[in-house]
Amino acid sequence: MATKETFDEHYLQEHGDMIGFSVGAPGPSTMKGCREIVIQSTNLAMRDPKREHLIFQYGPQQGDPDFRRELAAFLSKEYDDHVESDNLMVTAGATHGLHVVASTLFGEGMPVFVEDPTFFLAFKILGSDLGKTIIPVPTGENGVDLNRLEKLFEENRKKAGDKSTWKSPFWTMLYTMTVYSNPKGICSSSEHCRNLVELARKYDVLVFAEDVYNMFHFGEGKAPPRLLTYDKSDNPDYIGCVLSNGTFSKIFAPGIRLGWVEGNKSLVDILASSYMSNTAGSYNHYTSVVMGAAIQLGLLSAHLDRISSIYKTRMGLMCDALNKYLPSGCTFHRPQGGFFVWVVMPKTIDAQALQKIAIEKFRVVFIDGESTSVTGSYRNCIRLSISFSDTNQIEEGVQRLVKSMQAYMDSSEHQAVQ
Amino acid sequence: MATKETFDEHYLQEHGDMIGFSVGAPGPSTMKGCREIVIQSTNLAMRDPKREHLIFQYGPQQGDPDFRRELAAFLSKEYDDHVESDNLMVTAGATHGLHVVASTLFGEGMPVFVEDPTFFLAFKILGSDLGKTIIPVPTGENGVDLNRLEKLFEENRKKAGDKSTWKSPFWTMLYTMTVYSNPKGICSSSEHCRNLVELARKYDVLVFAEDVYNMFHFGEGKAPPRLLTYDKSDNPDYIGCVLSNGTFSKIFAPGIRLGWVEGNKSLVDILASSYMSNTAGSYNHYTSVVMGAAIQLGLLSAHLDRISSIYKTRMGLMCDALNKYLPSGCTFHRPQGGFFVWVVMPKTIDAQALQKIAIEKFRVVFIDGESTSVTGSYRNCIRLSISFSDTNQIEEGVQRLVKSMQAYMDSSEHQAVQ
Repeated sequence: MATKETFDEHYLQEHGDMIGFSVGAPGPSTMKGCREIVIQSTNLAMRDPKREHLIFQYGPQQGDPDFRRELAAFLSKEYDDHVESDNLMVTAGATHGLHVVASTLFGEGMPVFVEDPTFFLAFKILGSDLGKTIIPVPTGENGVDLNRLEKLFEENRKKAGDKSTWKSPFWTMLYTMTVYSNPKGICSSSEHCRNLVELARKYDVLVFAEDVYNMFHFGEGKAPPRLLTYDKSDNPDYIGCVLSNGTFSKIFAPGIRLGWVEGNKSLVDILASSYMSNTAGSYNHYTSVVMGAAIQLGLLSAHLDRISSIYKTRMGLMCDALNKYLPSGCTFHRPQGGFFVWVVMPKTIDAQALQKIAIEKFRVVFIDGESTSVTGSYRNCIRLSISFSDTNQIEEGVQRLVKSMQAYMDSSEHQAVQ
Repeated sequence: MATKETFDEHYLQEHGDMIGFSVGAPGPSTMKGCREIVIQSTNLAMRDPKREHLIFQYGPQQGDPDFRRELAAFLSKEYDDHVESDNLMVTAGATHGLHVVASTLFGEGMPVFVEDPTFFLAFKILGSDLGKTIIPVPTGENGVDLNRLEKLFEENRKKAGDKSTWKSPFWTMLYTMTVYSNPKGICSSSEHCRNLVELARKYDVLVFAEDVYNMFHFGEGKAPPRLLTYDKSDNPDYIGCVLSNGTFSKIFAPGIRLGWVEGNKSLVDILASSYMSNTAGSYNHYTSVVMGAAIQLGLLSAHLDRISSIYKTRMGLMCDALNKYLPSGCTFHRPQGGFFVWVVMPKTIDAQALQKIAIEKFRVVFIDGESTSVTGSYRNCIRLSISFSDTNQIEEGVQRLVKSMQAYMDSSEHQAVQ
């Protein structure tokens, strides 16, 4: 979720008065400490000269075994679920994981089902960059609409031909988020997840689950399990129908460009045996060795605890301020975790027009709903992120947002549609 | 050019008696020093706490400007040609560069022209992984056969439809190496390069030039310029038709997963403005910052000088030993640089059968010609790499190879085809 403008040093200097609710990336204050962690981890990773030729060589295609063991232990604790190191494959970040899966398992033009609304760049990567045919699926309060999804599978399955023409065991994939979704900030129920997996098994569909915000759980009790938990099987030959896409970008730092996909062993084996993987070796070997050391030293857990507590505070401040200041007719759901709050405004408000006023006059920026929708819906909605701006800017940012709404509602543009 | 087996620690322990002429990767002795370089470079890169939020954030889409400046200066010196930092985009290695270019500029099923023979994994990545239609082009002693290439462009151009249906300014690409090619180890002449660029301009073809061995120049005088040198224009709007694909894998270490593409500014802009690039930011930001420091400290140049001198010695030893021991009927061309020697054996010798004997009985491994050919040609050829095995193993390796040939020629299998 970078843009050239957002993270350019020049931009940060020039636009220092802007409060940023748009990007789902850590800001300077939640990246504090990364430098020290990397220094300590590098020292540990580089300690043994005998490992030099292994650290600097092409790594094993699935990723360094020591790193995968460390990551599996870390994830098992964070997810409160058993994660096998053999079920993990290293990627160069979540975007790269999506790129690898979409381009090696599926042909161009094959359909990809995406939630409506969804992560505003995902459907553009899949559609514009990678040439897939995008099919939107409506979402409700519990995630993707399963009845509609089944009908769409039925309708499109016939066009996919017989299995012999597929590049993988699947004719299509569903791009989804069942835990602290982007942009709505919601979690799907256990029952919903079970039904979704059943549907995917029935129709030979791969479910690509973005599990990038799962570790930011702010509510009582445990965080909801990732979708993959519902795709386990006692049959060792079961290939699975869910891939969990993870990244260090949110729990540590985007610049490290390190991620992983997790799936049943035989599905991960397919990905790790592509020719691309054969040529590249581990997709980001050196940074995986460094981050393996960070996990081993307990530094990643400590960092995650620190930033998660900051995000929890910010989410509380954001929701409290929205409750306090939002004009009547605006609603939102208080998320139990993740980075995003989804605000639904009255139908007469156009979020893109609002955004213009908000940026130019009130110096606050967010993502408009229309950008998150393949169908161009949700024009009256906005996505607010708590990750980038400092804690002491949250309430001020919401006040600026509300002032923007008032200025917009008083404008001739809005008066005309009333 | 990794394989799970080759670089697995277990494999290295188990197969320590094998002499490796197969992989085009540095071996333990030419990765010596990488550890120390990374330690010093990390210390420099991490010195300024004020840069923490820039190093660990999503980097700018085209790559860190400081790194690109350092890289441009380094390349300008190495290539003895002016390289603009604005013409460089960071990738996560050469494989990733190919993946990004092939999947964002071209649709699946679009034709890709590849040399016959070529890098043995390239056409499998493009064909099997990415679903392109592979069209082989014969090569001569000067590189790709230009007459044949023009005929193939003519024949296939019509099928590509009109420009409005293309994803990029090009309907196809040619995957090529004009400097120290893989597997033949040859360089194309200036005249050949000029004609190739002219052909590409005439037919709206992107030439994807793998420039990964160029800096290993062992002959007298200067190394031949990369193909991109012939695609320069005084017109700032000229988009270009050549992309140069570079990597730190050969000049430093594969595990660092860092590379670059270089092209005319407006072509690089297209790549850096994809949605994928928008999401990922710089494709390998942290490692680029570390390697930028290595260049700044002069450590990369010193390392490259050291390993280049080793490879030059090895290439001399390899060619001298081949001259001395190869049986009559075998020929090879003495390369002026790069990693590979291409040996042509008598037509009666099948390199795959030879390889079996060589590995099992004589403990030497190489790449058979058939694997490098889309058309399954070159069955009597082998590619020998000087990069992996130690200098003191080169002559012994050639002797083992020749013993394998003798054993093969004495075998009933070979007698039968005589």
